[in-house]
Amino acid sequence: MKIINYLYKEREEIGIYTPKGIIRLEKFKDMIDFIKNAKEEDFEDIKKSTNIIDKSKVKIISPITRPIHDIICAGKNYRDHILEMDDFIDMENFKLSYFSKRASYILGDGEEIKGRFDLDDNIDYESELAIIIGKEGKNIKREEVIDYIFGFSIFNDLSSRKIQMAHNQWFLGKSIDNYSIMGPWIVTKDEFTFPLEINIQSKVNGEIRQDSNTKHMIQGIEDIIVELSSHITLEPGDIISTGTPAGVGMGFTPPKYLKEGDTVECIVEGIGVLKNKII
Amino acid sequence: MKIINYLYKEREEIGIYTPKGIIRLEKFKDMIDFIKNAKEEDFEDIKKSTNIIDKSKVKIISPITRPIHDIICAGKNYRDHILEMDDFIDMENFKLSYFSKRASYILGDGEEIKGRFDLDDNIDYESELAIIIGKEGKNIKREEVIDYIFGFSIFNDLSSRKIQMAHNQWFLGKSIDNYSIMGPWIVTKDEFTFPLEINIQSKVNGEIRQDSNTKHMIQGIEDIIVELSSHITLEPGDIISTGTPAGVGMGFTPPKYLKEGDTVECIVEGIGVLKNKII
Repeated sequence: MKIINYLYKEREEIGIYTPKGIIRLEKFKDMIDFIKNAKEEDFEDIKKSTNIIDKSKVKIISPITRPIHDIICAGKNYRDHILEMDDFIDMENFKLSYFSKRASYILGDGEEIKGRFDLDDNIDYESELAIIIGKEGKNIKREEVIDYIFGFSIFNDLSSRKIQMAHNQWFLGKSIDNYSIMGPWIVTKDEFTFPLEINIQSKVNGEIRQDSNTKHMIQGIEDIIVELSSHITLEPGDIISTGTPAGVGMGFTPPKYLKEGDTVECIVEGIGVLKNKII
Repeated sequence: MKIINYLYKEREEIGIYTPKGIIRLEKFKDMIDFIKNAKEEDFEDIKKSTNIIDKSKVKIISPITRPIHDIICAGKNYRDHILEMDDFIDMENFKLSYFSKRASYILGDGEEIKGRFDLDDNIDYESELAIIIGKEGKNIKREEVIDYIFGFSIFNDLSSRKIQMAHNQWFLGKSIDNYSIMGPWIVTKDEFTFPLEINIQSKVNGEIRQDSNTKHMIQGIEDIIVELSSHITLEPGDIISTGTPAGVGMGFTPPKYLKEGDTVECIVEGIGVLKNKII
């Protein structure tokens, strides 16, 4: 199921995106409420629902616009991306670079991104698979990881490279207003097979830049959730972005940073396309 | 005014801490609601209130237990602390190391801290002044910074040093459950004079470890808020911790990390003492 968040008559609502239209889920306050509280019988009700509106009547927004915590990101999780950024890789002492991205409001598919060229014109895209946590978990066992996942979405970890690097820690260069983009929807986990081997790409103005597969992650989704949950209690609605493969703007010589008017597409197999224009 | 958050008859409430007892603020849902919505007339009502309970009847908890966003921290903001951590300092290219700390629940004064010695026994204290933001702000001008501050509290940025360093980014080693401690209350900004020159200390089992003054910050509170708000929209209830001076456990040779049974006190002039035992 594709669960979407949209504006209908200027009100935020969630629903199920289907070929026939959008099945409205008016019973739930928002996506976090749905993730926390939807029961088996709600899914049965959804199948029978006739409360359907046409896609043309709504404006799709990010599935989670206001996250309950900052987005947790796994930095440097694809070998080829580490090599394009650092020129070397020390696999013996490898540890994921976890960092967080703050967002007052996460942008969704089709929304324009106001690039802060005034602060730093080295603006870069990062196409990523995002995990949406389904229930509270601590010290989650490897064989139980999938139970704690609600679904997946596509995340564009927009980054301001000069600021990211100058401040030593990446937080500020990653947390500029509007630099978190997620969508177009959340696809529930039942639509995937595990271990997850799905293609992940990005395009800028139609040109393929990133082209990889989640099987090339150094730490897969199981490793990430086991590691994080042994330190931190994960909560329903938490967003964990799993890292980006090679092909970001900074990896090219000369770099191919984003310019005003560019269109970025982040594409993940089984989810869809997250497309945004930089203005 | 000292605004506190406490449990009374097992319910969370906020109030004003006074020598006569605690003036209850039942009109407000929680501290964030108070910060956002308290008006001049509410403060007049408080002065006249007779709804006072004895301190002995309540259990003080952190003034903000569930933050609206991860806590924003300014790393390496005191010269002497940079030198104890890195042995060198490059002031010409100085940029604050902003990072964030995730907390599902912030502990308060007097609560026991469960040390995760199983994950990493290099557990360290960091006594810090925390700014509590009072209203939404973006591109805040230097001369207006104080208008956007609600008050101040004391923050202990408990850190797991091996994890902090091994993962390159500090997020994971700083975000372990229970490693964010704040309190005992928020002191409103009217009780301070600016620029802020107040003493900041820490003690472990009564022994002074950190002993400095906020005037030694490389970037003062005005610099931090101007810089952050030019990138990120700040919101009422946001917590910004402003860095720690020299004297952390890691700075000693050999290091003086925390052990089970240790008591840590973080002391900031004009606010009070945040005291916790490690178990």
